[in-house]
Order: sequence, then structure tokens, then C-alpha cells
Amino acid sequence: MRKPVGVVAFAIFGVAACLAQAPSGPAAGAASAQRPNDCKPASTNVIAAEYPCIYPDRRVMLRIKAPDAHHVQALIGGGGAQTPMMDMVKQPDGNWTLTTPPIVEGFHYYSFYVDGVEMDDPGSHTFFGEMREISGIEIPSPRPEDAFYRVHDVPHGQVRSVLYYSKVVGKWRRCMVYTPPGYGKSTERYPVLYLLPGYGEDELGWFNQGRGNIILDNLIAAKKAIPMVVVSDDQFTALKPGESPLVFAAGPRRGGRPSFGTYGQTFTEVMLHDLIPAIQSQFRTLTDRDHRAMAGLSMGGMQMFLTVLPNLDKFAYFGGFSPGVPATALATITRDPAAFNKQEKLLWLGTGTVEKAHNPNIFVLHEALNKAGVKNTYYESPGTAHEWLTWRRDLNHFAPLLFRTSSK
Amino acid sequence: MRKPVGVVAFAIFGVAACLAQAPSGPAAGAASAQRPNDCKPASTNVIAAEYPCIYPDRRVMLRIKAPDAHHVQALIGGGGAQTPMMDMVKQPDGNWTLTTPPIVEGFHYYSFYVDGVEMDDPGSHTFFGEMREISGIEIPSPRPEDAFYRVHDVPHGQVRSVLYYSKVVGKWRRCMVYTPPGYGKSTERYPVLYLLPGYGEDELGWFNQGRGNIILDNLIAAKKAIPMVVVSDDQFTALKPGESPLVFAAGPRRGGRPSFGTYGQTFTEVMLHDLIPAIQSQFRTLTDRDHRAMAGLSMGGMQMFLTVLPNLDKFAYFGGFSPGVPATALATITRDPAAFNKQEKLLWLGTGTVEKAHNPNIFVLHEALNKAGVKNTYYESPGTAHEWLTWRRDLNHFAPLLFRTSSK
Repeated sequence: MRKPVGVVAFAIFGVAACLAQAPSGPAAGAASAQRPNDCKPASTNVIAAEYPCIYPDRRVMLRIKAPDAHHVQALIGGGGAQTPMMDMVKQPDGNWTLTTPPIVEGFHYYSFYVDGVEMDDPGSHTFFGEMREISGIEIPSPRPEDAFYRVHDVPHGQVRSVLYYSKVVGKWRRCMVYTPPGYGKSTERYPVLYLLPGYGEDELGWFNQGRGNIILDNLIAAKKAIPMVVVSDDQFTALKPGESPLVFAAGPRRGGRPSFGTYGQTFTEVMLHDLIPAIQSQFRTLTDRDHRAMAGLSMGGMQMFLTVLPNLDKFAYFGGFSPGVPATALATITRDPAAFNKQEKLLWLGTGTVEKAHNPNIFVLHEALNKAGVKNTYYESPGTAHEWLTWRRDLNHFAPLLFRTSSK
Repeated sequence: MRKPVGVVAFAIFGVAACLAQAPSGPAAGAASAQRPNDCKPASTNVIAAEYPCIYPDRRVMLRIKAPDAHHVQALIGGGGAQTPMMDMVKQPDGNWTLTTPPIVEGFHYYSFYVDGVEMDDPGSHTFFGEMREISGIEIPSPRPEDAFYRVHDVPHGQVRSVLYYSKVVGKWRRCMVYTPPGYGKSTERYPVLYLLPGYGEDELGWFNQGRGNIILDNLIAAKKAIPMVVVSDDQFTALKPGESPLVFAAGPRRGGRPSFGTYGQTFTEVMLHDLIPAIQSQFRTLTDRDHRAMAGLSMGGMQMFLTVLPNLDKFAYFGGFSPGVPATALATITRDPAAFNKQEKLLWLGTGTVEKAHNPNIFVLHEALNKAGVKNTYYESPGTAHEWLTWRRDLNHFAPLLFRTSSK
């Protein structure tokens, strides 16, 4: 599996506003080297890159220089929200350009296909998703209700790269730890949320694609959430030499998928025996179950169920954000509803309305739990699919419910 | 300029040993889908990626699937150590493959060129360099003297993403802060090294490409260096809307270069008025000049001279790692050698022997300083060019000299 060497690699990306007033010539359309006035460089662009740019109506103008290429296409998004494969048009200057239909707000992966080969956009930062470094684009949302993941002038926490040794797998691993504003200024101890990303992503996804630190900064500043430590880790604990090559997933993307069985159980052991003790020894944390929560998105939600359900004595709060659901989950949770309701302070289930339309499994689980008398909190993200905006909103609504009824 | 939004994007990469015993079929050469037994996946590969792989003699086997491409090439390295543009060979399975000549140990950027379009390798993690996200490969060194940048079983510090507001440029910025093992366990205060990356890189380069945190962890564990805080930042403080598009640099790579004048002076102002105060307010630091050092590589070395020389009252130690040298530097430093020698505790100049062979400017400066009677410490990295192994070695020899003669 991918072991951290303690070498931290960050990407950094900017604020669209930084380039928002970049001058440009008269809007001359796609064929021009001049970016149209009203098409603003994305916040996810690398330094000074003019493309991709985004129009006020969320159409995206893509550009890639490929004078010798025969065929160039682009694909934006995923999780049921992706565009079709779009043909780009070659311009006299050797650039291939495309203006897409309006794209849903939030974060999306995207790729170019140059003569059939998927490649990143040199104008954008890359993000670890789909089991590789892939271009990402942030489509700004003008809606006030989406201000929760923007950077505001509030106290900001830190995101730390932390090494810990796993006896279970016999390797150094790296986890990411968000510490809230003010952490370390006193001897105060904090509750801990263990938060997992999705398939093909790693411990970085929740801070990069997910903006988890910004969401917590804003919630804490507004006193909507109790200051907490948030820990993220990757789940490929058990990938061993020879477990590759990967089985390639369907579709044009290169993502690979080791069988879940190779890491699900091992991750739980690593988390319980190595990760939690490492966090509790290195950080000022509250270590009882009333101050420990776990959540995960998609495959991370499947992992969350596999970790939490056999260990309810260790977690008072848990959440599935568009989670995979183990076949045995419903039976396990509903075995003794009264006991479950007494023991667990929060069982959160979230999905996107677009996602639900073609896969209602989370809503079905929610209704089955209600029918069985198991308390649970169900959330639908309006207009989103199996994508990061769904999960940012999950976190924004989930975090305020944590650690409320517990006594320090 | 690229403004942090507080969203941290890390890449993570593994230890070659994790996959070192990956089973493979009988070595069948480049045409086979089976990786040759003695060609080990690079530590910089993404999870479970079999290629690129590295032979014991440091030849690298590259592979990219491009069944419809007409012409595929590869280029590894830079800074005078790059390979020539190498043609790859199409295999019956649609993969293009290449086995390179032996590559110098250490970290190198590399790219594929598919029908003339530069692209990243989906098998490798990307690193922000050359003004974009570019594939990187770590060529392991068997030499004991290069163990200093490997992860060992020693206490590890943390690398933190920290936001600060710059009044000088009116923006939130992000810097990276290394805190040594044990930081925060007591009220101890630490000296600070401000460390800059090179052209086209950012505040992440020293921890990602440079492994600065691992180098410090090892030096501190061996008691070769005094525990210190290390701060890295990017230098494009003054890039304003409209300062793009970039002037493209020579060569096949896409790197762009805003004129230095647009950021050199502004960075100094940001560092003195915003960054240093932010670090001193957020971290347990010693704030007198005897506990403040600055170093930078290449363009960051140029920036270091531009920042330190007019402010010798604020820095007792400074170092240039293959630095750019301002035209006025020699005259400024040699104006009053006796006073300079009394005031400054360390002036470090480093270069690589390969680099020196075609550009001896650092050696020439060293000799001119000696002739003028200015104390300076000169280092040559054996067998390396203008590349990261040179600068890793600079840091490994430079850091132990810091903060020795100062009294806490």
C-alpha cells in the first residue's frame, strides 16, 4: 500500500478573486488567445494560468495546446454528475478549446483526452482521486447557503501531516490531523472525529477536495460546532506487494479498484490498534466514546460501518455520507433498537437528490431504520449527485450535531 | 498570485520497499505486461502502480498506454541533469515503453510527450514544479551518505499548513511550518529558519521534493542540529491580476516566468511585515536575530539575498543553495568585511559539481568573498547539477551550523 515517507506534498491553489479582474482584450471568442472578459480563471488554476475559466452562468471554457494532436476531448465530473465526453475544437494557434454547458457548483475532477490518452490540464492543480493525480476544478457557488466552505476572516485551524507507526501492517503511515483555532494555547482537550474519504482518494481528500478544515473553521467561529480534532487517513492499509495490478474500473478513467476485502478488515485493526492510540498520545484529546465520532463518504462510509458496527462501545456518533452499506448493516443495527437508541447519540445518513434518483439505497436504509424504530438523521443535498458538494454539505450539517450531549 | 484558500491539498507517496517484493512473471522485457523482477516500482508511484519501475543500476522503465497515439516521448530531469528527449516504443498491447539510461539518485521531474503534448504519468504522484503539477520520480540512493533524507525510526516532527493574512498584498496566504519532535510538549521556544524553494515551485517544495522535514527529523534525532522551526512560503506575492499571461520559458516544458521584479521586493515586505510576525504570534519562537536564519535555493536564493542583505540586523545566518546572485550582492557584502564578519554568524554558499562545471558563479562569488576577507562557508555537492539532491545536501550540512553560537 502507499506508505507515507513523512515527506509532505501539498498542492496549493488560489482564490478566483485573485485573478478576477485580470484584464483581457475584447471578448474574441474561443479562437482568441485572449480570455473573454466575463470568463474568470478558476480558483483551482495554477499560478497565473488563464484557463480553465468560468462564466457567470457556470459554463467552463477549457483550453489545451496540442498543435500536433489529431483528436482532443474533455470530460468533467463524475458520480452521476459528469458531462458526456466532449469534443474540443482545434484553433489556428494550435490550441484546442471548448466551452461546456453550465457545470454544477462545487468541486469536480476533469480530464483531457489527447488522441485517446487521458491527461491532466497543465493549467489546473491536481488532486488525488480516481487512484491517480487528476485535474480538479472548483465551480464557485453564488448561493449564500454555500458560503460555509469559503475562506472567511475568522480564526483558522491548522492541518498537520502526522506520521505514526502501524504494528498491524508493520509500516509507517501518515494521517492528516485538523486542529481547531486555539489548539495548544491551553491544556484544553478536544473530542475527535475520524473522517474517511471515498474510493480512489486518500487522507488528503477531505482537506483538499472537501475543504473540511475551512468548513470546521467557519462552524467553530459561528459557534455552530464544538471545537474538535478531525483525523483523516487512507483505507488501503492492506494493499500488499503483488496485490496490484489493479482491476480497472469501467469507463474511460484509469481508476483501479483492489477488492474491498483486501483492506476493509485490516483498516479497522489499524484504526483501533494504531491510529487511535497514536492520536491520543500525540494530541490533547478526550478519549471516551462520548467524545469519539466516525464518518466516511462512499467507500469510506462502507469502511465506517465495518469499523463502527462491531465496536459500538467505542463510538457514540457515526455518519455515512452517500455510504456503501454492508449487507449485514441493517440487521446489525436493528437487532435491538431500544439498546441501540440508548447507546448511540447519532446515526447520520446523507445522500444527494440527484444521486438518490438513480440509487435510493440510503433513503431505503433510512426508512427501514425508522420502521424498526432506530433513531437516525437523514439528509438530502439538493441538486447534487455522488460528488464532493454533497459531502461538504453532509459535514456542514453533521459536525454541529457532534459531542453535544456528552459531558466533558 | 496564487492565494491559499486554506484548503490543503497534499499528495502522498509511498516507500519503494512497500512494493519491492511485488511478484511478477519471468522477466519478459518491455513488451510484456509483466514488470521485470528486478525493476522495482518507484516510491513516488501512486497506490499499487507498477510503473515507472527502477532497476538496481538506476535505469528507469517507463510505460504509458496510448494505443491511438502516433508518437510518444519522455524526458526526465532538469537543471542540467536532464536526459535527452527519448522516443518510446509502441508495444502490441498498446503500451509505449522505454528503459532509460541510469538516472542520477534523488528527485527528478519528468514528463511524457504524447503526439507532442506534454503530460503527466498517471502512475506517479505530481509535484508543483516548473509552474505546474508535474510527475516526479525518486531514484533511490544505495549510498550510506544519502541515508539522511530517508525515513528512519526516529521521532518525527509535523508539517503544518498555516494561514496568515498579508496586509502588504491584502490577501490570505498560506505558509508551511515544520515543528520539531516534542514541539508544544513544553513551553520551550525555538529558533526559526525561513527556507525558500526555487523558481516555479512553491512553499510545498521543501517538504515534498526536498524532504526537509525528514532531513531535520534525522539531524535532530542525531543531535546534529538544534531543534528549530522551519517556515517555507512561496515568492509570488506580487503577482497581480493582469501579470499573467506568463512569458514561456525556453525548452519543451511549459514553465512560465513572471519578471522577478514583480515579486522580489514585495516578497521581502510580506516576509518582514506579515509572515515573520504571524509566525512569532502563532508559534513558540525565539524572536531575536541570533535565532533567525534564512536560506533559499536558486531563485529562492536570489530572494534570500534581496531580503537579507538590506536587513542584516534581522538575520544572523543566511544561505544560498545554488542561488541566483544579485548584481550588487558582492559589493554590499564586502563593503566592510570586518563589520560583516562580526555581525553575521554564517554565510553559506552551495552548488553541485556538475552545475559548477557549466556555471561556476557560486564558486566565483566564494573566492571573491575570501579575497575580500569575508567569512563564508562553501559547499559542493558531488556529482549533482541544479537539482534537488544538491539542495537536500545543502540543507543537511547547513542546518547543523545554525544557532550554535547564539545564547538562548
